[in-house]
Amino acid sequence: MVVSPDKIHDNSLPIRERMETLVRVKQQEITQALAGLDTVDFHTDSWTRGDNGGGGQSMVLQNGTTFEKGGVNISVVHGKLPPQAIQRMKADHANLKGTGSDGSVDFFACGLSLVIHPHNPHAPTTHANYRYFETIDPETRETQAWWFGGGADLTPSYLYEEDAKHFHQKHKDALDKYDETLYPKYKKWCDEYFFIKHRGETRGIGGIFFDDFDSKPADEILHIIESCFDAFVPSYIPLVEKRKDTPFTPEQKQWQQIRRGRYVEFNLVLDRGTQFGLHTPGSRVESILMSLPATASWVYDHHPEPGTEEDKLLQVLKSPADWV
Amino acid sequence: MVVSPDKIHDNSLPIRERMETLVRVKQQEITQALAGLDTVDFHTDSWTRGDNGGGGQSMVLQNGTTFEKGGVNISVVHGKLPPQAIQRMKADHANLKGTGSDGSVDFFACGLSLVIHPHNPHAPTTHANYRYFETIDPETRETQAWWFGGGADLTPSYLYEEDAKHFHQKHKDALDKYDETLYPKYKKWCDEYFFIKHRGETRGIGGIFFDDFDSKPADEILHIIESCFDAFVPSYIPLVEKRKDTPFTPEQKQWQQIRRGRYVEFNLVLDRGTQFGLHTPGSRVESILMSLPATASWVYDHHPEPGTEEDKLLQVLKSPADWV
Repeated sequence: MVVSPDKIHDNSLPIRERMETLVRVKQQEITQALAGLDTVDFHTDSWTRGDNGGGGQSMVLQNGTTFEKGGVNISVVHGKLPPQAIQRMKADHANLKGTGSDGSVDFFACGLSLVIHPHNPHAPTTHANYRYFETIDPETRETQAWWFGGGADLTPSYLYEEDAKHFHQKHKDALDKYDETLYPKYKKWCDEYFFIKHRGETRGIGGIFFDDFDSKPADEILHIIESCFDAFVPSYIPLVEKRKDTPFTPEQKQWQQIRRGRYVEFNLVLDRGTQFGLHTPGSRVESILMSLPATASWVYDHHPEPGTEEDKLLQVLKSPADWV
Repeated sequence: MVVSPDKIHDNSLPIRERMETLVRVKQQEITQALAGLDTVDFHTDSWTRGDNGGGGQSMVLQNGTTFEKGGVNISVVHGKLPPQAIQRMKADHANLKGTGSDGSVDFFACGLSLVIHPHNPHAPTTHANYRYFETIDPETRETQAWWFGGGADLTPSYLYEEDAKHFHQKHKDALDKYDETLYPKYKKWCDEYFFIKHRGETRGIGGIFFDDFDSKPADEILHIIESCFDAFVPSYIPLVEKRKDTPFTPEQKQWQQIRRGRYVEFNLVLDRGTQFGLHTPGSRVESILMSLPATASWVYDHHPEPGTEEDKLLQVLKSPADWV
């Protein structure tokens, strides 16, 4: 489907329609950029929520020449949220209220979520996700509460400081254009969110992360989200281009597998989106678990030797650095 | 350490000491039986809980000739449980009460937990765990509430019905010796407990599972637990002996890797013991996550062709069979 990007900036349209257009356009743009580095192309699956409203489109590349596994998914869903779900959200959104006679709420949500795992242990894994949520008055169809969330982060198996700096700088630039207070806040939030408590280490070297973002006009936040989206390809693609053909040893591949085990631990034990999806009836499990790597390994009581490249990464995961 | 098994049957000793002896004896017996099938031996790590009481002994075999990874761990711990932990347990144990001035409770717990992952995709993975928990009056040191829990289950990548029958029969026999109502109940409980909700399938072909077992005299339950323990080696070792050298294709190995991915999903998302351990400060994470396989794989939207051996397993995981 070809989507006209003009709608993104059309002020006469509701934010929900503009954000939906943005995620559809970015899915095409990002998958094209990634496919440019591989001889295998993305496979597209469209799905609907059945009795509920909306659906999504998963684009997955498996067993490519550069990428072992990568998925760029969008979902555009609407329907009614049960009163319990509303109750949980109220802590962060005072103006959220039940509107149906049973306390249920009409909602709309859309977002893009991607995870890319290259083969080469020197090329980093990445994840990004930008999403919009709103509740709707069932009478007037006007937006009631709304917020944006999202972020992008990098998970290398080997630390190249210049790569970490590059990734952070691109995302800092994207935010600074609108508000210089955002990057420091979202960088810190990212380190905190992706902290694997039971391991005492972060999943990767961070990036940006934010949620419940409703403190500026929605139109302005949409521009910020677009700016972050625009930063993604230039922040990540050059790193893969640079590292995808770097020679590596079997030991380096094995270290990557262990780091992927930690990635799985974070996603299955701690990631709120994954938890929510797995416990929500009607979710498309394949799209949620697309984030898991094609291969992962767990070695009992594995600790890299001090001073090695593996240990250098671990030290940064144990105490996050400021990259820019 | 050599432990005298005589204490297991010494009625003059408290149950806690007899159960501790049982798990220590069984750790030696089971690891010896497993090591007999491999050229690599178990590596032993002893650990203590630091400021808290007790500790454990992890015995792990990695990268053997028969076993890719296996662990047989025991823990024998004691100390004080905070009031919140007691609150959660009260639903099942009415006679459980806070005894410290702050509502905390003195407790003792011991158990053995094992997970064995063979290399060969025709040889099944297995898990077993037997445990005892009690609360103690801080004045008299007498046992207040107590219960046993445990079970053993089998997770094949390929279904050999005779293997499933053998494993179930041995555990049925072990329980029938004491009470013929137990196996049907614990077999069903096992199928329910190891159900991976988000996949609509069980982790494996089941076995037995029970918790909060305090409905018979403790001495009698201890004998039942010993009987289950005794069933383990004869229920599992012959299956590995029979399958460990069966020729297999790369496709069969890959199917095993996918099934191991599901194993990881169950353990990290649903297993109560793992969840409890990962969220409890002071846990030894390496011992808890010893259960994870050395290698696992996630393939997007993978479904075996109907009528294949892979599909035959899936059908049984989707609707559990009665094996004996």
